[in-house]
Amino acid sequence: MLTLYTARNSICTQKVFMTLDEKNLDYDMKVINLFTNEQYDPEYVKLNPKGVVPTLIDGDNVIPESTLICEYIDDIHPEPSLVPNTPFGRTQMRLWSKQVDETIFEATRELSFSAQFREKMKGMTEEQRQARFKNVGDPDRRARFMSTYKEGVDSPYVFQAIANFEKMFKLLEKALTESGGPWILGRSYSLADINLTPYVWRVEYLTLLDLWTEDKPRVQEWWKQAKARPSAKSVIEGRLTGLVPY
Amino acid sequence: MLTLYTARNSICTQKVFMTLDEKNLDYDMKVINLFTNEQYDPEYVKLNPKGVVPTLIDGDNVIPESTLICEYIDDIHPEPSLVPNTPFGRTQMRLWSKQVDETIFEATRELSFSAQFREKMKGMTEEQRQARFKNVGDPDRRARFMSTYKEGVDSPYVFQAIANFEKMFKLLEKALTESGGPWILGRSYSLADINLTPYVWRVEYLTLLDLWTEDKPRVQEWWKQAKARPSAKSVIEGRLTGLVPY
Repeated sequence: MLTLYTARNSICTQKVFMTLDEKNLDYDMKVINLFTNEQYDPEYVKLNPKGVVPTLIDGDNVIPESTLICEYIDDIHPEPSLVPNTPFGRTQMRLWSKQVDETIFEATRELSFSAQFREKMKGMTEEQRQARFKNVGDPDRRARFMSTYKEGVDSPYVFQAIANFEKMFKLLEKALTESGGPWILGRSYSLADINLTPYVWRVEYLTLLDLWTEDKPRVQEWWKQAKARPSAKSVIEGRLTGLVPY
Repeated sequence: MLTLYTARNSICTQKVFMTLDEKNLDYDMKVINLFTNEQYDPEYVKLNPKGVVPTLIDGDNVIPESTLICEYIDDIHPEPSLVPNTPFGRTQMRLWSKQVDETIFEATRELSFSAQFREKMKGMTEEQRQARFKNVGDPDRRARFMSTYKEGVDSPYVFQAIANFEKMFKLLEKALTESGGPWILGRSYSLADINLTPYVWRVEYLTLLDLWTEDKPRVQEWWKQAKARPSAKSVIEGRLTGLVPY
C-alpha cells in the first residue's frame, strides 16, 4: 500500500492525488500540519529533508518532490499511461513539469499571498510578523515574502509572477496549436496536463485567469476540459477553502 | 546528426558533452557568443525561449534544458545505459538532477562570481556596471547579482550558496554509503554522476572543494574516480580558462 504525506491546501500534493485517481489506486494518507511546524519534526525531515509536502512511501522507497512522485507512480503502474510513448514526447512532458516547478509554483505563491494571505498578516503584531519573516530560512524566499507583504501588488515579484503566467499561457496556446489538442501533448492526457491543472485552478479561484486567457481560444478549450476531468474535480473542487501561506 | 548549441565555459553544456562522449556519439556544434548577446538573437530565441545554452537539435526536435537533453540522449541511444533500470533508481537519479538544477547551479554561479568575475566588474565604469545590472531581467537574479557585487563573500546569497553545497555534499556522503558506491546510485555510472561532475570540478578549480569534503571519505573516493572518467577529462579539463558571467 502506498502512503502519501500531505497538508491542507497543498497545491503540489493535488498533482499526486490526481495521478493516483487517474490510476484508480488506493493509498493511506497522513496529514502534516504546517501551522504547528510538523513539517520540521525530525522524524518527518528524515523522510523529506526539505521539510515540505508531499512525500510518498512505497515499502522501503521514500520519494519527495511531487513531480517525481507522479512520474514514479506512472512507472510502477503504467496503465492507463500518463507519460507519452516517444522520447521527444517524454521530453516535452518534462519541460512542462520543469516550467511549473521553476516558475509557476512560485508565481502562484506570490499571487495567492498578495491577493489574500497578506490581509491576514496585516492583523498580526509587528513581532508576530517579524517571527514569520525570520522563520523563512532561504534568503530568496524571505526577500520575496517581505517584498510581497510590504508592496503588495506593486512588488517586483508580483510583477514577475504575472509575467511568468503570461509567458506560460503563450507557450500553452502555441503547444496546443502544434499538438492539435485536446491535451497539451496531443490526443493523450498526460502528466503535463496534471502538473498544470491545480495552478490554473488557483488563479481562476483568485479571479485572475481571464487576464491571460481571453485572447487564447485553445487554452480556454483546454481548460474547459481539464477542469471537467473527474480526477481534477474530485481532488481540487471543494478543497479551496483557504490559501497556502509561506 | 545531432546539433548542439553551446557557449564558452557553459557548465550546463558540459553535462551534455559528457553524455554524448559516454555514448560515443557524433554531433555538430554551434557556438553562441554570450558577450555579444547572440543568445537573444530572435532566431535563437525561437529555438530556446529562455535565451540560454545548451539547445539540442535532432531533426525536427528542438530540446532546451541540459538535464532533459541528457535524458533524451539516453532515451534515443540507450547503450551504454546512463539511466538506472528500476523505477526507484530513476527517481533517485532525477532527484539528484533536480537538486543540481534548483540549488547547485545557482550556488556555483554565486561562488564563481564572488571569487573571480566580481574583480573584473570593479574595473568597469559605474555606467557599464548599471547597464550590466539592468540587462538582467529576472528580479531574483538581479538581486543576487547586485548583492554579490556589492557585498562579495558577505552577501547572504554567497552564504546560501555555501550552505547549499554543504547540504548537497552531506546528502552525497549518505547516498554513497547507502548505495555502496563507487557511483552515486551504486555500481553503474549514471546521469546523477554526470550532472554533478562539472559543478564539483568548478568548486575544486576555485580551491573551495576541501572545505566540504575533508571529512567525507566516500565523497573523496567518488570524486577521485569521477574526475578521472575519460568523458569528464576530455570535456572539462583544459577548458576552464574563465568563468561564466551573469
